[in-house]
Amino acid sequence: MREKTFVLAPDSFKESMTAKEVCIAMEKGLRKVYPTANYVHIPMADGGEGTVQSLVDATGGQLRYLEVTGPLGEPVTAAYGLLGDGTTAAIEMASASGIHLVNKDNKNPLKTTTYGTGELIRECLNQGIRKIIIGIGGSATNDGGTGMAEALGVRFLDAKGNTLPRGGGSLGELASIDISSLDARLQQVQLIVACDVTNPLCGEHGASHVFGPQKGATPEMVQQLDANLAHYADVVKRQLGKDVRDLPGAGAAGGLGAGLLIFTQASLQKGIEIVIEYTGLKQKLAKADIVFTGEGGIDFQTKFGKTPYGVAQAAKQSGKKVIAVAGYVGEGIDTLYQEGIDAVFGIVPGASELGKLLVEGPQNVERTCENIARVLQFSE
Amino acid sequence: MREKTFVLAPDSFKESMTAKEVCIAMEKGLRKVYPTANYVHIPMADGGEGTVQSLVDATGGQLRYLEVTGPLGEPVTAAYGLLGDGTTAAIEMASASGIHLVNKDNKNPLKTTTYGTGELIRECLNQGIRKIIIGIGGSATNDGGTGMAEALGVRFLDAKGNTLPRGGGSLGELASIDISSLDARLQQVQLIVACDVTNPLCGEHGASHVFGPQKGATPEMVQQLDANLAHYADVVKRQLGKDVRDLPGAGAAGGLGAGLLIFTQASLQKGIEIVIEYTGLKQKLAKADIVFTGEGGIDFQTKFGKTPYGVAQAAKQSGKKVIAVAGYVGEGIDTLYQEGIDAVFGIVPGASELGKLLVEGPQNVERTCENIARVLQFSE
Repeated sequence: MREKTFVLAPDSFKESMTAKEVCIAMEKGLRKVYPTANYVHIPMADGGEGTVQSLVDATGGQLRYLEVTGPLGEPVTAAYGLLGDGTTAAIEMASASGIHLVNKDNKNPLKTTTYGTGELIRECLNQGIRKIIIGIGGSATNDGGTGMAEALGVRFLDAKGNTLPRGGGSLGELASIDISSLDARLQQVQLIVACDVTNPLCGEHGASHVFGPQKGATPEMVQQLDANLAHYADVVKRQLGKDVRDLPGAGAAGGLGAGLLIFTQASLQKGIEIVIEYTGLKQKLAKADIVFTGEGGIDFQTKFGKTPYGVAQAAKQSGKKVIAVAGYVGEGIDTLYQEGIDAVFGIVPGASELGKLLVEGPQNVERTCENIARVLQFSE
Repeated sequence: MREKTFVLAPDSFKESMTAKEVCIAMEKGLRKVYPTANYVHIPMADGGEGTVQSLVDATGGQLRYLEVTGPLGEPVTAAYGLLGDGTTAAIEMASASGIHLVNKDNKNPLKTTTYGTGELIRECLNQGIRKIIIGIGGSATNDGGTGMAEALGVRFLDAKGNTLPRGGGSLGELASIDISSLDARLQQVQLIVACDVTNPLCGEHGASHVFGPQKGATPEMVQQLDANLAHYADVVKRQLGKDVRDLPGAGAAGGLGAGLLIFTQASLQKGIEIVIEYTGLKQKLAKADIVFTGEGGIDFQTKFGKTPYGVAQAAKQSGKKVIAVAGYVGEGIDTLYQEGIDAVFGIVPGASELGKLLVEGPQNVERTCENIARVLQFSE
């Protein structure tokens, strides 16, 4: 009999396993039943946390580290990825400017800056990178991407010609934008922004109103931040001729979406689609007999652009069967079957605390996949 | 295509679902994928708790209730089962004389009696029953089955010819046994005792040493109880010519095993074998395409006579595939594969407390079986 090919394309299981580790555990379980099958590992992500790691793992690239300016000005060590093709880099803004870098006492979206994210982009330019994939989830900022732009040479000036303090709180004073020193290399570099939200920059669905509170904004701060971003958009429109205010996704990551659209050659794309493209998932699916995917949690929200959904949609196009495993199987998984996720299995062995389950993730994935394989074998 | 037949033969999930309820949940899940398949429900048990319920459910019998004498003399309402054939009854000794009927303050194996179990047997005789299946797990007693025998007419006398007080603590005073009033109908009735332990009546592996402590016996009480049972065995041998002391299983249920062998037409048999026989499992398996079994917990101990093991062994004989589901999947399940359990799936959807999981058992069995069925369908 022809050897089977299993394509293993899971997301990470947050706080438990990277996507690569999930692939390894899946193979370990399946191999007990199919010892000589082919196993194709495609560590996946959906543009959120873990995307850099997955793209690095899936392409045989490498992680690099750089000290940059954190959201409140302190130095932080941020990771970015050089993908296996040697010309593409992957960044997660959260690595430099993320909400996990502030705490409940010092979080302050009036002050937080995306400057460190700009430094990461600059480093990519220094490395000769031609394409940057940038995940923008988990930001601590509400600065419209002005910090990022400043790190790349843009100057944001008040009426007296002085440089504004960093952070969204000062943008109300913005009088002019000097782009004369904007890094010219940016013209040659394509930025692909992983963005699943469609929020505009301003207004009740904008960055400040929707995402400001979770970054520490009081109702008064939300009003100020929203007004400041509106003023910023006005100055940009008047001076640079770009009207980003109502573009879908402009409000992502405290307006970093807008900043990237204004100052770089950026296009926004759904995170999972980017990952599918850069991991070569579709080509690799062609050889699959069965596709395994998975994520820490699977429920009705999975179909809003999460990895198992993306994998299933791609697999469905080529008529492949998809089995998902998850640490948590929530409500509404029956809505996923028609989307191409053919079966969903929880990996949890019994009543247990989350902490213990996170540690035991690999063995539980392994055992579950082994038993799925045992059932797959019934028909042989 | 020929319609599939699924044989559903789970044990109960303790504190969550009866075996019958598990069957119903299994069918509900499988039917979503195989709406027109045949579903054969065989609610199983292994001779322990739930055996009466399962035999009643599997044979279309009925539960009956009787007020009997509890382990400490108080009245208790005990259940027994009339099986579908109309001539077989099923009893669990624990229903009348079980450890759950005493508490930590009043448990006292010097005093506890199997009298109520004898009353249940007497009621079966009154009902014209010809065969009694009796599960003897979970006893609170250490009386060598003397209470049971007393309820059926035997008198245990001291040297002065007075009836001994009930309980294993008084057997040291036993001088003679009067069986002249033993219920004669017992000669016509076969007792099939579900017994998975092989402990002898006395000694370090005997009833008092091994099971006494969990019934509340102090070390001193263990010594006394063991000596009393040895004396009892001596009197039985001398007077009735029966030597039960070292028979495997004589020490089960505080010596009720011995008592049944002495005073009734009893044979001991593994619990799961009895259930397999009286549910007609083997005949029903013949038509199965796939067999589903399960239990609250499955681990390496499952192969020591638990239901999924028994079902798998029977299914293996007829070359049928067996899938087990469980609320808890423990260590060593890989040792079960060679025993005929082809795959094991946990039903737990994520990190959760036991209490919640017990309540949500049916929906978790249903979801898991549905997804197993979805995989079974891959090959069609």
